[in-house]
Amino acid sequence: MSRLPKALQDLIDELGLLPGVGPRTAERYAYYLLKADKHKSGKLARTMEQVHDGVGQCPVTFALIDSNQERSPLYDDESRNKQQVAVVEDPFDVISIEKTGKYTGTYHVLGGVLSPIDGITPESLKISELIQRIQDDDVKEIILATNASVEGESTALYIQRQLEDSDVEVSRLARGLPVGVDLEYADQITLSRALEGRQVV
Amino acid sequence: MSRLPKALQDLIDELGLLPGVGPRTAERYAYYLLKADKHKSGKLARTMEQVHDGVGQCPVTFALIDSNQERSPLYDDESRNKQQVAVVEDPFDVISIEKTGKYTGTYHVLGGVLSPIDGITPESLKISELIQRIQDDDVKEIILATNASVEGESTALYIQRQLEDSDVEVSRLARGLPVGVDLEYADQITLSRALEGRQVV
Repeated sequence: MSRLPKALQDLIDELGLLPGVGPRTAERYAYYLLKADKHKSGKLARTMEQVHDGVGQCPVTFALIDSNQERSPLYDDESRNKQQVAVVEDPFDVISIEKTGKYTGTYHVLGGVLSPIDGITPESLKISELIQRIQDDDVKEIILATNASVEGESTALYIQRQLEDSDVEVSRLARGLPVGVDLEYADQITLSRALEGRQVV
Repeated sequence: MSRLPKALQDLIDELGLLPGVGPRTAERYAYYLLKADKHKSGKLARTMEQVHDGVGQCPVTFALIDSNQERSPLYDDESRNKQQVAVVEDPFDVISIEKTGKYTGTYHVLGGVLSPIDGITPESLKISELIQRIQDDDVKEIILATNASVEGESTALYIQRQLEDSDVEVSRLARGLPVGVDLEYADQITLSRALEGRQVV
């Protein structure tokens, strides 16, 4: 028998479905969980079962919220500018921008990026909700903060076109040299963007 | 609020306890589980809860077995030589050796390696059980198949000393150049071992 106990093999197979987890890593996780005391792996299992029930989605910004909250507390915060909206791909992007401490507007989570090959069309994203929100909240500025991937860029372009006729100001995050990176190590696209986006001082 | 919903944050924290999983990876896993349908993450959670109840330990070889099995089927297999025992660190090592298809003896899983700094003393390992087994099964050959780490080597040495007075033959896995690795890329310790262990052809 070169086979593992069924319960362990099942766990390895299930862990192998996590993104970026190969058979070796799954084995390592499974063995760790098996060696850890029952209480510990049980706790992880419970938090996993509860995550769907405990997490909700804000009906306005589509950010993740506690399921007992009605709306994103950030959106309801009086000090945040509702007329400025940063459009991001996923809920973790909100956390990243919040960490800078430099942004006082609100967010709109698209829930992904356009990718026809994966069947993600404009209808699968929260784009019509964004356009509705621009009217409802009398939004003045939209900051397209999608990633610099092909899909992120084309999603930004699509939204930009949808908003051409409205009088909302649309901006994009600046592309250029990351702080601390030497010029000679920058890739050519980044460097071209840094040149294009040069600023008068 | 730069904070995530509690249920999600809890899941990220718990996933971060897995070996080699940092905050970013834990976030990625958690978000994947949240986006996956409830059935999918529920299934992983259930396999995780069941792993302790579904997996037992063979009382003779200490290999992992289904909890409804009494002993390792490999040990009970009549075609396996009970007088030859490969001593390994953990249950996955059994699978690795079995995959070679070249071994017809049985196994003894130590359950770790000596590591005084982590509080792992000879008493924490299945060493006395091994010595008992040598008597019970009239074992003729012990193959010390621990890893080539400092702990693995000292564990092998410790067992070797324990068996000095017995007439059981003790061998170690050969150390040398891995198949397919060029001489110039081999590290010096491996090359020294390959020299020491050279074989007349």
